[in-house]
Amino acid sequence: MRNIRIGMIGCGVVGQGIMRLLKENAASIEARLGGTIEVRRIAARDTEKDRGPYVPKELLTYNPAEVVNDPSVELVVEVMGGVEPSYEYLKAALEAGKSVVTANKALVAARGHELIELAEARGADLYFEAAVAGGVPVIRVLREAFASDRIRAVRGIINGTSNYILSRMSEAGIDFGPALAEAQAKGYAEADPTLDVGGGDAAHKLAILATLAYGAKLELNQIATTGIDQVSALDIRFAARFGYVIKPLAVSLALPNGALDLRVQPALISKKSVLASVNGALNAVYIEGAAVGPCLLSGMGAGALPTAVSVVSDILDVGRNLHSAAHGRVPQRSFRGDRVTVPSVQDIRDHRCRFYLRFSVPDRSGVLGKLASVLGKFDVSIEQMVQDGHETAQPVFVVVLTHPAREGDVQNALREIAALDVVTATPQALRIEEL
Amino acid sequence: MRNIRIGMIGCGVVGQGIMRLLKENAASIEARLGGTIEVRRIAARDTEKDRGPYVPKELLTYNPAEVVNDPSVELVVEVMGGVEPSYEYLKAALEAGKSVVTANKALVAARGHELIELAEARGADLYFEAAVAGGVPVIRVLREAFASDRIRAVRGIINGTSNYILSRMSEAGIDFGPALAEAQAKGYAEADPTLDVGGGDAAHKLAILATLAYGAKLELNQIATTGIDQVSALDIRFAARFGYVIKPLAVSLALPNGALDLRVQPALISKKSVLASVNGALNAVYIEGAAVGPCLLSGMGAGALPTAVSVVSDILDVGRNLHSAAHGRVPQRSFRGDRVTVPSVQDIRDHRCRFYLRFSVPDRSGVLGKLASVLGKFDVSIEQMVQDGHETAQPVFVVVLTHPAREGDVQNALREIAALDVVTATPQALRIEEL
Repeated sequence: MRNIRIGMIGCGVVGQGIMRLLKENAASIEARLGGTIEVRRIAARDTEKDRGPYVPKELLTYNPAEVVNDPSVELVVEVMGGVEPSYEYLKAALEAGKSVVTANKALVAARGHELIELAEARGADLYFEAAVAGGVPVIRVLREAFASDRIRAVRGIINGTSNYILSRMSEAGIDFGPALAEAQAKGYAEADPTLDVGGGDAAHKLAILATLAYGAKLELNQIATTGIDQVSALDIRFAARFGYVIKPLAVSLALPNGALDLRVQPALISKKSVLASVNGALNAVYIEGAAVGPCLLSGMGAGALPTAVSVVSDILDVGRNLHSAAHGRVPQRSFRGDRVTVPSVQDIRDHRCRFYLRFSVPDRSGVLGKLASVLGKFDVSIEQMVQDGHETAQPVFVVVLTHPAREGDVQNALREIAALDVVTATPQALRIEEL
Repeated sequence: MRNIRIGMIGCGVVGQGIMRLLKENAASIEARLGGTIEVRRIAARDTEKDRGPYVPKELLTYNPAEVVNDPSVELVVEVMGGVEPSYEYLKAALEAGKSVVTANKALVAARGHELIELAEARGADLYFEAAVAGGVPVIRVLREAFASDRIRAVRGIINGTSNYILSRMSEAGIDFGPALAEAQAKGYAEADPTLDVGGGDAAHKLAILATLAYGAKLELNQIATTGIDQVSALDIRFAARFGYVIKPLAVSLALPNGALDLRVQPALISKKSVLASVNGALNAVYIEGAAVGPCLLSGMGAGALPTAVSVVSDILDVGRNLHSAAHGRVPQRSFRGDRVTVPSVQDIRDHRCRFYLRFSVPDRSGVLGKLASVLGKFDVSIEQMVQDGHETAQPVFVVVLTHPAREGDVQNALREIAALDVVTATPQALRIEEL
């Protein structure tokens, strides 16, 4: 057995966490790998900045190409993020036959197929456990533990920022704006939170999960994506009254007709469901296999050390392949453009589920009848309807839970209702996810 | 790439489930393995019995030695169960350099170290994902996903029979006896349920988990094991009043002094804890890593198909190693007798936790004072005490929740209390697990 020589691109908090684990757990890592992991070169934007006790300054270079081209580096670890220029550096590494471990979800979602094809062609590995749900080992579980099963559904809370904000809105009864400000103050949300609260980040991760689960080549624009910014404290309160919580859910289902149902959305789920108690910055993925049944994985979705554990475990896995010259040991077929199916994805307008609808209307007789009659006209059947009696001021709120309805019909009904003169604000519509 | 030729010992429901998965998912398994899995020989007690559409009769033999000695078999799958004679057959297979996949927790707990040493010496693999928690991939997660971390705690609900019985007792307010009878009628409990309800089965599994988590060589008698048969519907009701549920917990903790705390027990856990909602036949394992933080895995703990998924995924993993001649790719060091630490295990009398105590006493003045004074004498400090006022008949119940106390002190106090003339039945004591 021999040492594994690695280079790292990026040295922020995750990179520093990786260096810390490699140092603190060196003995057990060596025992488990049968060799040590030797860091040869680290690329960081500012080579003078102090990066704590685990990052030797003499390893730093500002130039990622120096890491990739260092002839002694056989495995490149990328924790810089962003599609470009990461893509160029990792492509160069793979072309040189070097294996890659990355935590970069945007890159894997956008160029994963291409990079994995390249890796297989050059006899190298590309691992990316840390790209989805930080310390939760969902990639390994889908790729290996359930490799013998057919996956029916993957439902996840995979954006910690959105989950933190909705959890705080629910606990404190506050609206989206103040909850976001709180998340930003605590470091759970970026200054520009668009990618998180708009659902884009979760869509990246869902594309990766669905690709692994279904062997499907997906484009991000095939995922119907709705952000959490449209949810108000009012909706959370009404949902609770009916026994639901509102969660930021990424959903992929294999439909009986062979198509995939792919959605990122704030959705109502029963308070009793397994995902209802996944709060704060926790992530969770709930997988349903045809044979294995349900399986829940939950844990820390982000953070330097949880993410670093996933990266270092990937380094160990690739290191074992290097030891036994078993590159490409786990064929990531489902990620290979030439072999995977290009699935049909259900048009979101054909999605059927129960809906939560909220209308602002004057407290006047005949209004409920008007709402009901438009819904009925579009085949949207009412299961429950409440009018908020606690409000003294106009307007009042009418909340409807529907029976299962086609989304396109619901949208058409809402468009007609929004045009009624009695409706004082754009109607709210949220999906109810049964799980 | 080439085909993997396997033989199977045992062909009960799990064996039939394996054959079904290999047939139904043949295409995706081939894509993921890069070759097919070919079943050459199956040993079953009765070769004439109909075993459904997935088991070709011509593969059957009554003699497991014929499976092991078949020169075309390179991987032996064991789903027969029991330490003997499984041990002899698997030993012979490993000695011949054949790899082994087993679902046999009793065997892995009792002879795992020895078999893994043998496997490594002969260049073969021994995998056993299905030995713990059926379809929940906890072995793979501990061995690979968290290989770069130090595990602090593993707490699990890993005996489905016990969990089903306690869940039913809680839902239906019935006592242990009727709940057991119900579990037996539904096939969730054996005719002789001792190994399940007495905690022995969970102790086997905990020994395996703790060995993987801590690199420790454990003997079953180092695990303080208490069955669930001592729990009454009364205890469940009192626990609920304080905000707790009673769960069959297997616990292993790395203590700050380096010793391990190993217990199998019915314990009180907060209704709000992540394990509280793991009901019925579900299994769950809650892992805490120094770096990765908390991680919960839950799913089906038993059942033919969930268990078969774990076995077939192991076959795929070992098959990949056979393809790339990478036997022993993941050194199961923590299972190797020559390298692992033999840990000190904390004497259960030195365990400190909060306790739930229940006493049967006459409704007479001075009784509470007597109980309190004996507890105080042994340094067992009372946090809450209630006397059940709803009972009209004698005796009444006094329930005490203690502050953290040393278990040996609690035992000594209970012994003295049991000898008091006012106490009409053996006092009940259950641990409260904080998680």
